Amino acid sequence: MTAQSGCVLALSGGVGGAKLSLGLDRVLPPGDLHVLANTGDDFEHLGLSISPDIDTLLYTLSGRSNQTLGWGLEGESWNTMEALEALGGDTWFRLGDRDIATHLWRTERLAGGADLAAVTQELARRMQINSHIHPMSNQAVRTTVHSVEGHLPFQHYFVRRQCEPAVTGFSFEGLEQAQANAQVMELLATNQFSHIIVCPSNPFVSIDPILQVSGIWHALRDSSAAVTMVSPIVAGQAIKGPAAKMMTELAVPVTALGVAKHYVDKYPGLVDDFLIDQSDATLAPEISALGMRAHIAPTVMKTLEDKIQLAQTCLALETT
Amino acid sequence: MTAQSGCVLALSGGVGGAKLSLGLDRVLPPGDLHVLANTGDDFEHLGLSISPDIDTLLYTLSGRSNQTLGWGLEGESWNTMEALEALGGDTWFRLGDRDIATHLWRTERLAGGADLAAVTQELARRMQINSHIHPMSNQAVRTTVHSVEGHLPFQHYFVRRQCEPAVTGFSFEGLEQAQANAQVMELLATNQFSHIIVCPSNPFVSIDPILQVSGIWHALRDSSAAVTMVSPIVAGQAIKGPAAKMMTELAVPVTALGVAKHYVDKYPGLVDDFLIDQSDATLAPEISALGMRAHIAPTVMKTLEDKIQLAQTCLALETT
Repeated sequence: MTAQSGCVLALSGGVGGAKLSLGLDRVLPPGDLHVLANTGDDFEHLGLSISPDIDTLLYTLSGRSNQTLGWGLEGESWNTMEALEALGGDTWFRLGDRDIATHLWRTERLAGGADLAAVTQELARRMQINSHIHPMSNQAVRTTVHSVEGHLPFQHYFVRRQCEPAVTGFSFEGLEQAQANAQVMELLATNQFSHIIVCPSNPFVSIDPILQVSGIWHALRDSSAAVTMVSPIVAGQAIKGPAAKMMTELAVPVTALGVAKHYVDKYPGLVDDFLIDQSDATLAPEISALGMRAHIAPTVMKTLEDKIQLAQTCLALETT
Repeated sequence: MTAQSGCVLALSGGVGGAKLSLGLDRVLPPGDLHVLANTGDDFEHLGLSISPDIDTLLYTLSGRSNQTLGWGLEGESWNTMEALEALGGDTWFRLGDRDIATHLWRTERLAGGADLAAVTQELARRMQINSHIHPMSNQAVRTTVHSVEGHLPFQHYFVRRQCEPAVTGFSFEGLEQAQANAQVMELLATNQFSHIIVCPSNPFVSIDPILQVSGIWHALRDSSAAVTMVSPIVAGQAIKGPAAKMMTELAVPVTALGVAKHYVDKYPGLVDDFLIDQSDATLAPEISALGMRAHIAPTVMKTLEDKIQLAQTCLALETT
């Protein structure tokens, strides 16, 4: 298997991406996985610098993610939020007591002049994570959801409004000033990656923000490694999150094919391999017709074994 | 009794001052007590704006102070600190989970442009406190402890170093730019106070910072109300905190008389009445000789009844 011969790059949003990243983390030699994380969801809240997708990756890869909630830390307590509620403060974005420690730590380091890449690297190290987690950029890029109710900052749409307003599009504020993560760009330029895997994350608000940062998608396309994408839509549904709802509202067919077309149209030549779930096997010919190699495998990750299995499937693709 | 005929002003630091403030709060008609609080202990920590003396007053007057610890909230939990410790973050200043909510709330409001007086007023209101708590100034005044080990920011001396380094003096950074609390100055100028009470707080690091803010001690001296001071030193000891240790290190006699002299030398004509504990009765003639009226009463506050009793003693002084 060539999978072990080089580093692997994964592009990831939150939960779905973190699941596959965990599988990759477990099957690759320690330190070989690099995850390029979406920071379009980041925001400042209660004076804290919060990076939800990075934190989901940190908590998942350190084996402490809350399986019940689907976000945050396991065994979390909520005493700060309760006290804040008693004060009449903003509690729509639920921050657990232990989770707050992460934000306090990050906020202080950023205020002290460290960049988000260094802060994230150090957080991962302190959480005993072997894999590397990189923010897509050190500069703030903020996803804005265009909706029938106007423009909404991402977390207001996602958490406060529970994805209720129908979306009409997206923009990413700050893209012009954003520079791509230097370490990942360097690894790409020197062809250090044997595999590049786009995790089954939301195309519009998790992967697009990463690909839109200047230089990133061209560097991925021009890399010697194949780019493998795992469809976030399985049997017409998103495993988690608003991807399917967004596709409906944007009049995109809610299928793996709809996802594939989105990427082909926006980033021609980027995706080499497109992995769809076995339940979507009939879509393979149409996906192949878009100029990608279509692959069929179980992609739904419920257990750790599922995650490891999907990781192994992705890493084995080139040898099939 | 004239005590109920007007508002009462109390000058206060943390624990000792908050105890007498609680007694005053309980015996005065709701809203008649104004507490002018030391903010020299305030600092920014982990990105949070922390006002320890104000918080002690808030938690004490809302009946939620931690009696066991002597600071913070009762029934507090420490999950954020534990998680921060696991990250290797700064945990020498212990912030409870519920306490953090207060700091998050304050920090966000200050960052949003509100001044400390308005933020404090709103916190008190949200904690159902009838009395008014005022920071001595909206501008940052930061107590620096001069010690045999050099200059230390107050909380580093007080909490991190546990008051260990011998002190040689104090300075208050930012005094030049600091303006006295406008509402208290207005109430003083219009003689709204029937009593002015200096609580049994540390002379050097609780009361001096307040009196040093431009205009405050002259306004107190020139007010029509008598200024009553309660000695923080009883039988040669401070009830709580480093006052006695500081006096020893500064070669000031560790007695109520030493305290009285400190104030007479620094603020001539300020103190009209000086209340000493019954155990220090023999000091009364010498205190009187400094030009104050000396009064003797039980001043040690262990129970709520003690606090109420001392408050009543202070309020009754003019009628004796």
